[in-house]
Amino acid sequence: MITLALELGERSYPIFIGSGLLGQAGLLRPYIKGERVLIVSNEVVAPLYLHKVQAALGDVRCDVIVLPDGEHTKTLQTLSLIYDKLLESRHERGSTLLALGGGVVGDITGFAAATYQRGVNFIQIPTTLLSQVDSSVGGKTGVNHALGKNMIGAFYQPQCVLADTDVLASLPLRELRAGLAEVIKYGLIDNLSFFEWLENNIEALLAGDKDLLAEAVRVSCADKARIVAADEKEGGVRALLNLGHTFGHAIENGMGYGVWLHGEAVATGMVMAADLSARLGYMTWQEAARAKALIERAGLPVVPPEQVNAQDFLKLMSFDKKVQAGKIRFILMQGLGRSVIESNIDASLLEQTLEAKEQLCQN
Amino acid sequence: MITLALELGERSYPIFIGSGLLGQAGLLRPYIKGERVLIVSNEVVAPLYLHKVQAALGDVRCDVIVLPDGEHTKTLQTLSLIYDKLLESRHERGSTLLALGGGVVGDITGFAAATYQRGVNFIQIPTTLLSQVDSSVGGKTGVNHALGKNMIGAFYQPQCVLADTDVLASLPLRELRAGLAEVIKYGLIDNLSFFEWLENNIEALLAGDKDLLAEAVRVSCADKARIVAADEKEGGVRALLNLGHTFGHAIENGMGYGVWLHGEAVATGMVMAADLSARLGYMTWQEAARAKALIERAGLPVVPPEQVNAQDFLKLMSFDKKVQAGKIRFILMQGLGRSVIESNIDASLLEQTLEAKEQLCQN
Repeated sequence: MITLALELGERSYPIFIGSGLLGQAGLLRPYIKGERVLIVSNEVVAPLYLHKVQAALGDVRCDVIVLPDGEHTKTLQTLSLIYDKLLESRHERGSTLLALGGGVVGDITGFAAATYQRGVNFIQIPTTLLSQVDSSVGGKTGVNHALGKNMIGAFYQPQCVLADTDVLASLPLRELRAGLAEVIKYGLIDNLSFFEWLENNIEALLAGDKDLLAEAVRVSCADKARIVAADEKEGGVRALLNLGHTFGHAIENGMGYGVWLHGEAVATGMVMAADLSARLGYMTWQEAARAKALIERAGLPVVPPEQVNAQDFLKLMSFDKKVQAGKIRFILMQGLGRSVIESNIDASLLEQTLEAKEQLCQN
Repeated sequence: MITLALELGERSYPIFIGSGLLGQAGLLRPYIKGERVLIVSNEVVAPLYLHKVQAALGDVRCDVIVLPDGEHTKTLQTLSLIYDKLLESRHERGSTLLALGGGVVGDITGFAAATYQRGVNFIQIPTTLLSQVDSSVGGKTGVNHALGKNMIGAFYQPQCVLADTDVLASLPLRELRAGLAEVIKYGLIDNLSFFEWLENNIEALLAGDKDLLAEAVRVSCADKARIVAADEKEGGVRALLNLGHTFGHAIENGMGYGVWLHGEAVATGMVMAADLSARLGYMTWQEAARAKALIERAGLPVVPPEQVNAQDFLKLMSFDKKVQAGKIRFILMQGLGRSVIESNIDASLLEQTLEAKEQLCQN
């Protein structure tokens, strides 16, 4: 087992990464402050892992709520189901919420924890690659609104994150690929050697090599923890973690939440960001093509969907949380392994990117 | 104008109290960080004061949402209306929410500010006595749940509080009385000389004496600011501010939100707390009767409603946020002007209080 630390003063917490962690009695126990736990999971994950987690919790009094699956369920309505369960089961301020599932379960559970009785403890047990490398770490919690993704939420840190890499073996290939999109993101943002390591190992990762996947989770979490520790509330550098997300959120919303997986939308979004970066002269076309090639080798989509046209993108991106004074902010690449936040984008170049379709990243 | 400071390190903020503040251009302006404001008000307050606030904001781009009135509207559904308005009007992270109204508007707007795009700035302009002396100060925000009051919320501090005491002149007498319940609370908690000042001035306050009302607001806010500064997240002493609220919330919920005003329920709750305190020997029966007498002179109810019986109280109080390890925590009085938090209450004495009805505070 590897233990990383997310350093946030009195809100610091450990990230445990390794094989067979779900069944380890005693690992979670010190992070449960009160006497009761509500486990929040979903209909796909609960049948696989709920019994293990319950067994590991021993004599802690556990309630369980099983949510429907999918990004389209990440709403205020689903959040209400958690509040109802907490109150009907008379959970108090001393209770702990435990999120057992992917990014949707983690985000919604974290937001419930942030707001139930003005804040109770919570623990993240991410069960997808995407949630292990990204959403479970850093305290972003929330739900979607019909007009924008993650528009309602809070910064709220867990007591600990427990990433059991064994669960990745049961992940459908499409989910594994979606997670790799966020893994590749860390390479592109500020870790060229990791990007090159991914170029060398992408097929083995897709084939489910356990040691390589664990290493990918470790590096990704370490990169994320470093960036979040430097800028918890996204006043500056943390925005780099949104590489590909400005375009990606527009795809997710434009298609209807859940039609494209978040990781798939981010993958195409990163290709679009690379294309725009090349058009602006921030990176070479060769570098942009290399970014696109790795994403394509991961089996991820590299062409935006037909149904979301350039006008849709512009409209949907104007709702992005990073919009400031009416200007959309983009995360762009300055070569491979280096990124930057940019607001003043030549509108005609942006339009070219939005129209490029299959020709993205090709000069 | 008097300016008090709520000292919370980098989250410190001023509380402005005085006559004619609503119309003062320039007073609010420094606390609006971005370029846009959403004013949240309700159907009763907006016709009276919205134009003044808009005029004082000058060239700031203002949107307005007018909510229905009443405690029964303090729900996730009403909160959603604010989110919808923010997104439809494309408000960004730099926007400021301005709460213009009583406690319901302030609590719900504060919670919207805490959670829209994971947190935007907000300003409190309380327009009732109750919200000026209590709910606008200290950063408690939230909404009710069918199973409990303020069960969903966040601690989130405003940029400033602006209490224009002129607005109290337009307040219906019932609302003025409800506000005086919270004013009396400060005397009972830890300010005997203020309690005695209220005994000397209660009729003049009810008659709307402007100077005396302003003084009552000043002392109340100063007391609250001191207690909140000592314990922002209610780990200890802040719970004293809930004097009368354990019983009071049960009345509000048991009757249906809005049937009894919050201040009315707290008034009766304080009489019940005094009664229980006397039964436990924490205060004399004479002192309890003196507390009850002042509350009664303020025109506030001192007998719990017939519809909420002893069993209802026990059930409803078990949902209270102050419940720990299944035990209801009570705020009790140790004489007048001194209070204490107590969990281990003799159940038979509590039952006597719940059954006492008209005989509360009479030995």
